[in-house]
Amino acid sequence: MTSRAEFGAEPWCLRESSFRPAALAWTESLFALSNGHIGWRGNLDEGEPHGMPGSYLNGVHEDRPLPHAEAGYAATESGETIINVSNGKLIRLHVDDEPFDVRDGRLLSHERVLDFRAGTLDRRAEWMSPAGTTVRVVSRRLVSLSQRAVAAIRYEVEPVGKPARVVIQSELVANEQLPAPGDADPRGAAPLDVAPLQHEEHEAARGRALLIHRTKRSKLLVAAAMDHVVELPVSIRELSESRHDAARLTLTTLLHPGERLSLVKFVAYAWSGVRSRSALRDQVEGALTAAVMTGWEGLLAEQREYLDAFWNAADVEVEGDGELQQAIRFAMFHLVQAGARAEGHAIGAKGLTGPGYDGHAFWDTEIFVLPVLTHLLPQAARDALAWRHSTIGRARARASQLGLRGAAFAWRTIGGRECSGNWPAGTAAFHVNADIADAAVRYLDATGDPEFSAGPGLDLLVETARLWRSLGHYDVGGRFRIDGVTGPDEYSALADNNVYTNLMAQQNLRAAAAAVQRHHPQATQRLSVSAGEPQAWLAAADAMVVPYDEKLGVHPQAEGFTRHQEWDFAAMSSGDYPLMLHFPYFDLYRRQVVKQADLVLAMQLCPQAFTADAKQRNFAYYERLTVRDSSLSACSQAVIAAETGHLGLAYDYLAEAALTDLRHLREDCGNGLHLAALAGSWIALVQGLGGMRRLDGVLCFSPRLPGGLTRLCFAVGERGRVLRVDIAAERATYRLTAGDEPLRIRHHGSPLEVTRSGPQSRPIPPLIAGARPGQPPGREPARRS
Amino acid sequence: MTSRAEFGAEPWCLRESSFRPAALAWTESLFALSNGHIGWRGNLDEGEPHGMPGSYLNGVHEDRPLPHAEAGYAATESGETIINVSNGKLIRLHVDDEPFDVRDGRLLSHERVLDFRAGTLDRRAEWMSPAGTTVRVVSRRLVSLSQRAVAAIRYEVEPVGKPARVVIQSELVANEQLPAPGDADPRGAAPLDVAPLQHEEHEAARGRALLIHRTKRSKLLVAAAMDHVVELPVSIRELSESRHDAARLTLTTLLHPGERLSLVKFVAYAWSGVRSRSALRDQVEGALTAAVMTGWEGLLAEQREYLDAFWNAADVEVEGDGELQQAIRFAMFHLVQAGARAEGHAIGAKGLTGPGYDGHAFWDTEIFVLPVLTHLLPQAARDALAWRHSTIGRARARASQLGLRGAAFAWRTIGGRECSGNWPAGTAAFHVNADIADAAVRYLDATGDPEFSAGPGLDLLVETARLWRSLGHYDVGGRFRIDGVTGPDEYSALADNNVYTNLMAQQNLRAAAAAVQRHHPQATQRLSVSAGEPQAWLAAADAMVVPYDEKLGVHPQAEGFTRHQEWDFAAMSSGDYPLMLHFPYFDLYRRQVVKQADLVLAMQLCPQAFTADAKQRNFAYYERLTVRDSSLSACSQAVIAAETGHLGLAYDYLAEAALTDLRHLREDCGNGLHLAALAGSWIALVQGLGGMRRLDGVLCFSPRLPGGLTRLCFAVGERGRVLRVDIAAERATYRLTAGDEPLRIRHHGSPLEVTRSGPQSRPIPPLIAGARPGQPPGREPARRS
Repeated sequence: MTSRAEFGAEPWCLRESSFRPAALAWTESLFALSNGHIGWRGNLDEGEPHGMPGSYLNGVHEDRPLPHAEAGYAATESGETIINVSNGKLIRLHVDDEPFDVRDGRLLSHERVLDFRAGTLDRRAEWMSPAGTTVRVVSRRLVSLSQRAVAAIRYEVEPVGKPARVVIQSELVANEQLPAPGDADPRGAAPLDVAPLQHEEHEAARGRALLIHRTKRSKLLVAAAMDHVVELPVSIRELSESRHDAARLTLTTLLHPGERLSLVKFVAYAWSGVRSRSALRDQVEGALTAAVMTGWEGLLAEQREYLDAFWNAADVEVEGDGELQQAIRFAMFHLVQAGARAEGHAIGAKGLTGPGYDGHAFWDTEIFVLPVLTHLLPQAARDALAWRHSTIGRARARASQLGLRGAAFAWRTIGGRECSGNWPAGTAAFHVNADIADAAVRYLDATGDPEFSAGPGLDLLVETARLWRSLGHYDVGGRFRIDGVTGPDEYSALADNNVYTNLMAQQNLRAAAAAVQRHHPQATQRLSVSAGEPQAWLAAADAMVVPYDEKLGVHPQAEGFTRHQEWDFAAMSSGDYPLMLHFPYFDLYRRQVVKQADLVLAMQLCPQAFTADAKQRNFAYYERLTVRDSSLSACSQAVIAAETGHLGLAYDYLAEAALTDLRHLREDCGNGLHLAALAGSWIALVQGLGGMRRLDGVLCFSPRLPGGLTRLCFAVGERGRVLRVDIAAERATYRLTAGDEPLRIRHHGSPLEVTRSGPQSRPIPPLIAGARPGQPPGREPARRS
Repeated sequence: MTSRAEFGAEPWCLRESSFRPAALAWTESLFALSNGHIGWRGNLDEGEPHGMPGSYLNGVHEDRPLPHAEAGYAATESGETIINVSNGKLIRLHVDDEPFDVRDGRLLSHERVLDFRAGTLDRRAEWMSPAGTTVRVVSRRLVSLSQRAVAAIRYEVEPVGKPARVVIQSELVANEQLPAPGDADPRGAAPLDVAPLQHEEHEAARGRALLIHRTKRSKLLVAAAMDHVVELPVSIRELSESRHDAARLTLTTLLHPGERLSLVKFVAYAWSGVRSRSALRDQVEGALTAAVMTGWEGLLAEQREYLDAFWNAADVEVEGDGELQQAIRFAMFHLVQAGARAEGHAIGAKGLTGPGYDGHAFWDTEIFVLPVLTHLLPQAARDALAWRHSTIGRARARASQLGLRGAAFAWRTIGGRECSGNWPAGTAAFHVNADIADAAVRYLDATGDPEFSAGPGLDLLVETARLWRSLGHYDVGGRFRIDGVTGPDEYSALADNNVYTNLMAQQNLRAAAAAVQRHHPQATQRLSVSAGEPQAWLAAADAMVVPYDEKLGVHPQAEGFTRHQEWDFAAMSSGDYPLMLHFPYFDLYRRQVVKQADLVLAMQLCPQAFTADAKQRNFAYYERLTVRDSSLSACSQAVIAAETGHLGLAYDYLAEAALTDLRHLREDCGNGLHLAALAGSWIALVQGLGGMRRLDGVLCFSPRLPGGLTRLCFAVGERGRVLRVDIAAERATYRLTAGDEPLRIRHHGSPLEVTRSGPQSRPIPPLIAGARPGQPPGREPARRS
């Protein structure tokens, strides 16, 4: 993997100290602001140059036809793709008639800082125009975590050395021209054939303006509005204008050195697929007015208050590796941004940081993002599960269309509709349903949440259990098989008895039976669960086939996998990766080559289904085959590396997950951040080095530090309490920082009760590790220790 | 299966005695004329009404983009689709200013007759115009088997009862408007977005006319020309005209009862992707002039001469079932039409009888059509193999693109390019390569053909053997596996060690090694076959995995197949078939349900790889699972039913294959005939009831008649000789009707030498058959006996 360290390792912010035009698409993703509802990429205030302009509203999508070269029954005909909504970030500046553009004149200095505690993006530039006039531009931007419909920018300009006539245009622009799509990298966004926003209404007066559009095919109304507060010591001229696809406030004045034109721009967004234009207009103008009344300083204060509460409970401290410390906070900051206010909408694979993967949510959300939110921001986890639950009608219909019972949730979607146009790599990956059930169970275990348990949780568990029961069948030997499905590893498809799928289905079936027992009346009344159904689920779970290769002493990822030809790793050069861009799936599917943790992920999520010995052998076997062409892999490899005693390797994988975006390891961050990898860095740290598992309902820890780290401290929320785990080389200390009930946990297998009365400290037992497992040549993680 | 008998069982023709508008698309296919180069569907002379207008030139196609919802490396981006070229069949008639249209006025009689010996399509109609004028129209049409660029029509009109003013317009029309495509049945043709023919040149004078067009994307020049000879006792007015997309000769006269206007229209076609317009013009006009000089009677005589030679050598006689007698000759007639003059171009799945499957050739040609042509029209078999060989450059490039050695021939194509847009059901069906090798070996066994053997035959065998060697691998136990490929059964895909594929690959590898031994200098010089290569092929063949289910005592179609859930046949109703139009492939692929013979086809083509016992058990097992949603299945089931002693069942399947089109059993003949099923009827008869196999180089027969048939007589060409096999209930008689060399054969296992000195007669041993195997409910073949 390549590696670029381009930011100083500051613990609480990400600072870019010079302007790098070629890195723009990437840094726009890193510097993206979002509250889960609104997403603004870190585009420059003046809009250009850009890598990828982007303003998103969670859920706002356009429909696009899914073409198929050959027709097939139940093939998906139409998908959803995220669209760039009206850009409210835009503030253009003209200095003595010349546009402020970092490509012209001389850029004397340029700095951008993302502040994890303030929740703001700062920019500071000094620029000399081609005609020799110098100005200093300072902007600060926020997308409000407290007022979800609102974003705001404070923009200041002052002349340096001599007076300057400045013109500022603060705009809303719809249907921005997007860069032409590049090659057919399937990880990007599908281009739409037309501008997706159709004009409905526009208006501007006295610094306030409004644009309302409707998406062409998906018929969603989208409103954006802005208002401004200007601080200026001298006289100024103002003009408000609007057209179909743009609204603008223009300010102009002559500034002398020492004078500063300061503008606060408040932007509000609203959208709806059902409400009327006038209702939407009221909504967006109400939000805007509230924001103006809160004022710039008020918004800043609310923002910091929200984040203080988060960091106080959730912060992770890393000593001995400043870059990792920064990276883990960067990751957690973006997780908060993605999940905080999604409220009824999906948390997509890229959050709202870019249009990659069409803005779709996948199973990543449930398996990587929600386990983190569950312990740190449980309300956000609940909201995300509630979003899934809101799609259950479509999932039931999809199951029925496929001849199955229960619910078959979408493999990739924005609004719940199956948007995969390639069924072997989409619809057939039924494990998404067990993943959803798993996330629900984790959420319930960590929160108790009785309302969710009896409501959406029960629905999700019952309908997914029904799916598995109808998807599998008993063979003549009475074993329950799940044939012809696709597991997590995307370099395999349509295999029989994928171990991950079968074990996760087994857990799903058992959890559903338990849920029905807990909520008997609801299950019978609302879901018509018959008396025999839970018995049938338990029987299927007990009879579940888990293939094992006796000869090799390992679990094949799926039946027959270990008999396939191994990929010729020795023949690969670094340019051959990621393999899916250079080799046909035909070849990948039929060989032993693993894109991402699959059997290893099964060992992480179903820890009690494998003996310690089997974990050792399996891990070593799959390490040799796993190329990590997916960003979802390193964190699970870190977790099992740690469990099998390979702490250095675990550390390396943890760092790889955490630095995926910060070091641009995959060269594909221009379309947005890798949210699952960001979440994965917390998982690698907490489940890997912290060894956290829930076994028989009890949170267990087996903390150990790798060489190079001197201290690690993380927090885990559990039923109203916050447990802080503080790990040093030879001892771990457990402390309750919130909640009054004592908490029973385990430390390296020994029971322990933690109370508010004081910390509990325990020694870390010594470790005898075997040889470090090898990876395919050239695919070793970068050595950290 | 449904059944409609709508034609009288005449032995040498197909007669339709009344006009059935709803059946037009179907009957246009049945009445199609072709010589393998030109194809004219049986459209009415006046063009309308029609089911599907169609005039085709073998090889003339348009490119069309193959869309993919999700991009993938090496995905096919552009395919080929057959196009309707300029219609030269068109002769419109106006009677007292009213167009002759069978939908208006009163159709007093209407008859169409396809004559298998004359090679003509006759039509005879008596029609009263809405104004009460009655005319008799008689037309005869041929597509010349002797002059491949030429077709001709004799058209006569005479008034009945009272005089009539008639206007005849004889036309060439390009870019005819085609019916809107129906639902997304994947068996149809893909619609093109634009008229494919772009005007280049047009001209008309003195009854002669010419149109030259170029296809828009594939850039092929297509020329069509016509000339006319008019026989008329009275004065006539003529007008020749041409426009971009049409040319026309108009004749007008007043006819009295007893007078007849008789027009012979000669049409010539030419096309090229490389030659100039003037060269093409010369070519088409030369062909036209030659046809005019041969004259109508001359063309008729040549046509009959060609067919007489064919029928004299190849005729099949069936006694006891007049419908089957007719059907088998209908089938053979269409095989001749499809293959006779294809000369360098493919024999498509529909021949040139319709646009179904985009006009593509599949493996059907090699496995179903060529085994028949090899014994009856060996030159046509050689031409078809030469066409495949002409695509070897593209096949080598495709193999290389897929990371394989040798040649990977296209799954579906017109010109050799891979046109499948669905790789699991296309590219992954690598068995097409072994099928091509098998057809080459069959051709060589039956003809000797030294030039083909050392040339194209050697190339085909060596390059396909190389493919197999690189596609398979040795497992740790030293067994040679071929994983992740798709076998013949289209209700399965991407399985490991498909028995059919592995056995056919085994034969392919061995045949290639033998060919290299025969043609050592050429193999080394032209193909750089190293000393070790043939050894490697033989070793792989010897180590080939052939899965066997010990528990069930049957061969699984592919590894794991017999452990899959059985399709719920009991829950199906007849409207659920064909299953692929009503169930997702996801579900079909993962269950035990067989669209078409796969393991059964392996038993047919690799007879020595199975014991007699295994054949019995396998046949019974797969009969229960095979739904015959493909027309390629019944013939192979007939062959193995006969071999396993189920003669009644064999007869039923033979009849199903033979009547596929004549009885419209699949309701999908409107897009063209099922050429492989037509060929399959001969295979069912000769390899099934005749029991013909080649074992250790010797033609072996095990003839037996089912109840209901009293005699069967067929011919087999073998190295310049023609062997006629005449089967009665208790005896079979073998006779050489051409060739002087004696022929060693086997009759029910006993050696026999047949010479020109006289027939050899042998008794048929008695048969003790087991219980008739069952089929899925509702999928039993119609009972014949």
